Amino acid sequence: MTASSPLRVALAGLGTVGAGVVRLLDANGALVARRAGRPVEIVAVSARDRARDRGVDIARFDWVDDMNVLARHPQADVVVELIGGSDGPALTLARAALTAGKGLVTANKAMIAHHGLELATLAEGANAALKFEAAVAGGVPVIKGLRDGAAANEISRVYGILNGTCNFILTRMESDGRDFADVLAEAQALGFAEADPGFDIDGIDAAHKLSILASLAFGTQPAFAGVAISGIRHVLAADIVEAAALGYRIRLLGIAEAGHGGLFQRVHPHLVPLSHPLAHVAGATNAVVAEGNFVGRLLFQGAGAGDGPTASAVVADLIDIARGEFGPAYAMPAATLVAGAIADSGDRRGRAYLRFAVADKVGVLAEIAAAMRDAGVSIETLMQRGAHADNGVLVVMVTHEGPERSVAHALEKLRGSPSLVDEPLWMHMLV
Amino acid sequence: MTASSPLRVALAGLGTVGAGVVRLLDANGALVARRAGRPVEIVAVSARDRARDRGVDIARFDWVDDMNVLARHPQADVVVELIGGSDGPALTLARAALTAGKGLVTANKAMIAHHGLELATLAEGANAALKFEAAVAGGVPVIKGLRDGAAANEISRVYGILNGTCNFILTRMESDGRDFADVLAEAQALGFAEADPGFDIDGIDAAHKLSILASLAFGTQPAFAGVAISGIRHVLAADIVEAAALGYRIRLLGIAEAGHGGLFQRVHPHLVPLSHPLAHVAGATNAVVAEGNFVGRLLFQGAGAGDGPTASAVVADLIDIARGEFGPAYAMPAATLVAGAIADSGDRRGRAYLRFAVADKVGVLAEIAAAMRDAGVSIETLMQRGAHADNGVLVVMVTHEGPERSVAHALEKLRGSPSLVDEPLWMHMLV
Repeated sequence: MTASSPLRVALAGLGTVGAGVVRLLDANGALVARRAGRPVEIVAVSARDRARDRGVDIARFDWVDDMNVLARHPQADVVVELIGGSDGPALTLARAALTAGKGLVTANKAMIAHHGLELATLAEGANAALKFEAAVAGGVPVIKGLRDGAAANEISRVYGILNGTCNFILTRMESDGRDFADVLAEAQALGFAEADPGFDIDGIDAAHKLSILASLAFGTQPAFAGVAISGIRHVLAADIVEAAALGYRIRLLGIAEAGHGGLFQRVHPHLVPLSHPLAHVAGATNAVVAEGNFVGRLLFQGAGAGDGPTASAVVADLIDIARGEFGPAYAMPAATLVAGAIADSGDRRGRAYLRFAVADKVGVLAEIAAAMRDAGVSIETLMQRGAHADNGVLVVMVTHEGPERSVAHALEKLRGSPSLVDEPLWMHMLV
Repeated sequence: MTASSPLRVALAGLGTVGAGVVRLLDANGALVARRAGRPVEIVAVSARDRARDRGVDIARFDWVDDMNVLARHPQADVVVELIGGSDGPALTLARAALTAGKGLVTANKAMIAHHGLELATLAEGANAALKFEAAVAGGVPVIKGLRDGAAANEISRVYGILNGTCNFILTRMESDGRDFADVLAEAQALGFAEADPGFDIDGIDAAHKLSILASLAFGTQPAFAGVAISGIRHVLAADIVEAAALGYRIRLLGIAEAGHGGLFQRVHPHLVPLSHPLAHVAGATNAVVAEGNFVGRLLFQGAGAGDGPTASAVVADLIDIARGEFGPAYAMPAATLVAGAIADSGDRRGRAYLRFAVADKVGVLAEIAAAMRDAGVSIETLMQRGAHADNGVLVVMVTHEGPERSVAHALEKLRGSPSLVDEPLWMHMLV
């Protein structure tokens, strides 16, 4: 192979992202070749439906019906996996490609969250590349940012807005004063949310991405099962109003920290102060912050989804491979990643936003206040608002800084109380 | 050399950044070795004053009096240049190191802006690494972001807040309502501005960085001489108030664009709308935006200076080299960078903020309005404010979008008019 021989790509999956990769290489091929030192060329493709019109010409590529044949395509140096799904055909293809010594580039966050360690081990055994820039934050090069840009730092925490659908919904609730269900329906109509939105709005998708970031930041084995997850279904328009009055905006954050006896990973709606850049991230944008012991706070921000941005990340990985500028996927050999214990979040200190929907009767406030006192939770701010249409009277409090354990105890004491007409909502305050 | 043999570093310059690199490798050495695949070790150092207390132990390194001997140190694989200055000892050292086949890592924006092409050519001839992440935006990995992360995109423009001193001054003027000279004195007392601050506040430093970003973004030869530069000396507290009333903040931006018949590069105070993330970048922080045809708008943000962040970027480059993950400094061979024509800014369309300090007499406004009309400049907003302490009466206008040529013509017509008590200030409105 001469220095200018093309990097030959087999592309599995021709949905919007797959078609985007074809379109990008058509539009920017000469520039990509200039930057990569050699052309990057698709030689073969595979997808479920050969005939579907994708707006790009795929007749020029070798069509392969069987994904497992594609994975070992004799003309291909690298396989790009854009099928999706944590297991099934994507995983079979990925294993086959790496076993055959091909490089693998994927946008599949679920597969990497669940099987990244195995795939990295396979890649290293075959001296092949495994790259997944597009799996986290779409077009934002945050994998490279952590693996390469921040590599000299001990990272204390990595966190960010990892799901564009949730951020779109929260910022629309914020700007329009509308409720969750209403905005979700709009997001679905606009194509920003899936017909079955649970994966996004319940935080699973963000948790997949977070677990990938945590491995890179801390040198720990991917531990998706260790992510505490809650989504945004229970955030009311009223919460957004209360947060704003306090000087905060609500964002669904994925956050991973070292300390507390292990690795702490959580996806949860947070109150973000207006002085923090994440408070100003609106719409479907993604943003990731890494805090390092020498670099301080780094922020990476951009489009978190969409065919163009995702294709940009996929092709950036292909360029790394074409240049020969790649190494272990998690920066260090997979075998050296540490199995991190799951940290006890109870030890974690912070301020809490607590919202109770209560019956409009005498003594409710006293009951809540007593539960807080008995658990040792110190209240900084308390607001009671008149009857809310669907949720009774709302009581909102912000606690002073203290261990999360105490707040959990207080809420445990209140569990099942007839004074509460709905589950309390506990959100963390980002510092 | 086995895979685990150390990468051996000769360090030239032991000011705050040099000492920061020593401190970082002391604190994070084991982690760096884990991520780099092998240890990164300083073997030799050189600086002007051997005896000075730097808070780090340098007695364990080979001390070399002569920088040019250090550049060829037989035990060193890579030379780190932290001397500073575009020419003189830094350039001599850099040339000597690359000629001797050593890798070169530098934080020297002036040297790279003026001599980057020559040094990249030397590096490629010697098959050695040339890396300068720390030269732009301190700890923010924006060189890697453009070279690697955004590599699949045609970039339409790259711009950002590239000088922390200016951003500190502007945001302090904003928060305190104080005037430039007053805040500059404070910044000097705090160590955020040099005793001779011209390099920063007149935009030269930002222009060095911009010319480096432009080469990476557009594949053009570095063209520092093609940067149109003005700084922040003439921004009044009153301008900041007027901008805020219009929904904008004032930031010194470096901006480079392709088009207009060539490469357009400018450092200039801009009005940044509150909806843009750069409006929320406060203090000494740096932030760079790159706009690509597939990825859309990418933002990289963090600490733009200081020993810790700069050391972080220097060691990230060393890690790339230790991994063998490096290639041409400008992504493509230096010989293939295009000599870009300097674009005619007159063709550029935009909205302008114009502030006039005028004599308080009849007919002044008519004179200005006539000059605008005759040059074909359409006025969107006009405000006249009562007498300002030092600058007479202020007239502020915002134009409709139009070619910059027209605004330049209008200001030319007004030049030398006895109605103006000071030079008009022209700021561009970022879109």
